[in-house]
Amino acid sequence: MMKDAYAAAGVDIEAANEAVARYRRLLSRRADPRVLEGIGAFGGCFQFEGFKHPVLVASTDGVGTKVLVAAALGRYDTIGRDLVNHCINDILCAGAQPLFFLDYFAVSKLNVEMSSAVVSGIAAACAEFELALLGGETAEMPGVYADGAFDVAGTIVGAVERAELVDGADVVAGDAIVGLPANGFHTNGYSLVRATLPPERWAEKPADSAETIGDALLAVHPCYLPYVRAIQQAGIRLKAMAHITGGGLIHNLPRALPDGLAARLDRASMRPPLIMLQVVREARLGDETAYSTFNMGVGFCAIVARRDAGSAVEAANAALSAKPIPSAAPMAAVVGEVEPSHPSGPRVII
Amino acid sequence: MMKDAYAAAGVDIEAANEAVARYRRLLSRRADPRVLEGIGAFGGCFQFEGFKHPVLVASTDGVGTKVLVAAALGRYDTIGRDLVNHCINDILCAGAQPLFFLDYFAVSKLNVEMSSAVVSGIAAACAEFELALLGGETAEMPGVYADGAFDVAGTIVGAVERAELVDGADVVAGDAIVGLPANGFHTNGYSLVRATLPPERWAEKPADSAETIGDALLAVHPCYLPYVRAIQQAGIRLKAMAHITGGGLIHNLPRALPDGLAARLDRASMRPPLIMLQVVREARLGDETAYSTFNMGVGFCAIVARRDAGSAVEAANAALSAKPIPSAAPMAAVVGEVEPSHPSGPRVII
Repeated sequence: MMKDAYAAAGVDIEAANEAVARYRRLLSRRADPRVLEGIGAFGGCFQFEGFKHPVLVASTDGVGTKVLVAAALGRYDTIGRDLVNHCINDILCAGAQPLFFLDYFAVSKLNVEMSSAVVSGIAAACAEFELALLGGETAEMPGVYADGAFDVAGTIVGAVERAELVDGADVVAGDAIVGLPANGFHTNGYSLVRATLPPERWAEKPADSAETIGDALLAVHPCYLPYVRAIQQAGIRLKAMAHITGGGLIHNLPRALPDGLAARLDRASMRPPLIMLQVVREARLGDETAYSTFNMGVGFCAIVARRDAGSAVEAANAALSAKPIPSAAPMAAVVGEVEPSHPSGPRVII
Repeated sequence: MMKDAYAAAGVDIEAANEAVARYRRLLSRRADPRVLEGIGAFGGCFQFEGFKHPVLVASTDGVGTKVLVAAALGRYDTIGRDLVNHCINDILCAGAQPLFFLDYFAVSKLNVEMSSAVVSGIAAACAEFELALLGGETAEMPGVYADGAFDVAGTIVGAVERAELVDGADVVAGDAIVGLPANGFHTNGYSLVRATLPPERWAEKPADSAETIGDALLAVHPCYLPYVRAIQQAGIRLKAMAHITGGGLIHNLPRALPDGLAARLDRASMRPPLIMLQVVREARLGDETAYSTFNMGVGFCAIVARRDAGSAVEAANAALSAKPIPSAAPMAAVVGEVEPSHPSGPRVII
């Protein structure tokens, strides 16, 4: 009776139960000793230890309308990786070690295959970067989501010792900006990208490319944790970091700079992915728009003292050789430097 | 140019910037010394102290299709309170003290008045219960959400000393189940509720009610923290707790019980809100459906030793007098007791 009453209201209880059972199997395959097994816990319980004066660093994010690309192509296994990697990069900017993740998945009509594929992508990325997948919510919401559409969002929590919090306070003019390579649009600008390259073109394979436009649009947002760790493990102090997300280099780099400082970028050092150059060309975007919307080939920036720039690039490149980012340029590079800003001038000079 | 290119793609950058500026003002009015001000932080930073062997307890949730009720009635200031209160109740079950909250708000077309009203509800509930509003994401996603629809989800993080984690391990047959009063559907069962009482009836005022159906449907999900604290402050040990959400009493109470135990409920002790009785009656729901979908007047359960039952009810009632739950029955009550379960029998006996 319940099933019938609910089914009439557009909610499929059986699908919901099956989805939860699948998530349980996904999670139990990856048991994490830090997660305490409550009995049917209403909240996930994470044993927190190993920090003296911890700062918890947290971020919530989604993947924008990249979900529409995944839905249109029927490929649901990568979007969860996009989400987790994006969130890791966000708290990485503060120097935080990721601890755990929770996801929110909502859809007009629950399809167990689809929701399990999304959650398995989340679980795989969590396992790869040693986050506990502590909880989540799957919601079937007829009437809220467009037919066949879904959305996925997530929250990450990490920690860093108070004394090691990276906050940009000691960035000075002359510091070097080390850029780590991007492999596509990551999780930003997709409404503009889809308006420029509509779905009927996603099977095209551009002459200079080994992959279709659809493949390039779904390239997984890289997690920059291994490369940042490699720089730190080379004994180099990171003064500030910026994750280049919505708003591109122009709006994200200033978030890592104290007042009175600007970033002067060296365009010749950047290698925007081919698909990005194609969108810039076809949409006839000027530089200002391109650099304030897209990462232009630089997915993550680390600011270091000028004397450390060479070894930082070397350490990052060694890590990139060991664990390459698919479809990205293979090298880190110094992409710019910090200089005094003019009171009414731009914070990023291209 | 950027604005134009993006506007053509259905994304309003100016509205997004204005929304973020409003959130900043909301937050700065409620400065929290535990939140560290980074420069343009990519993740929110929370100074965590005061715990020796902490367990972090976290939960992500939404408010279901109650968002459609809010959207249809154009009342956006309460749904944020629903969300925060729901999340607090979830981690309260483990005995956790709430620390901070992050929200995710997504919509087909960003309307600054609407998104600010939702976020101000979130900020108000966070302030009331001393959570830091650490971060959030506002996403405009044309094509993902139905026209005029929005969704809101949130993540809460709290903490409890390892030795004080409430996990139900010592619940035994004979323990009492203390019920705290509900004031409506809270955030569950709304697809069924809307199918039974469609929008054209929301202006109706039932004969025995002082409020319209619409008002009753938007009653804010109560936060049970003050009443649970009152029981604890009376020196009573809480053995287990259950937040009665989706799945009603039948599916949520067993989450608080060790294997081999069942809950026998005393229906006469429960006071379902009038609007709930109306839906049960009009949709002709049997008991099994009603009790496995709705809270039936019991929004939160605390399990205590039988000898503590009287003082637990007394402490909760004193707190309910001091801070009444609008539209809810004014009293806590013993609503049932724990007994041995039969191997093939139900875990909840009504």
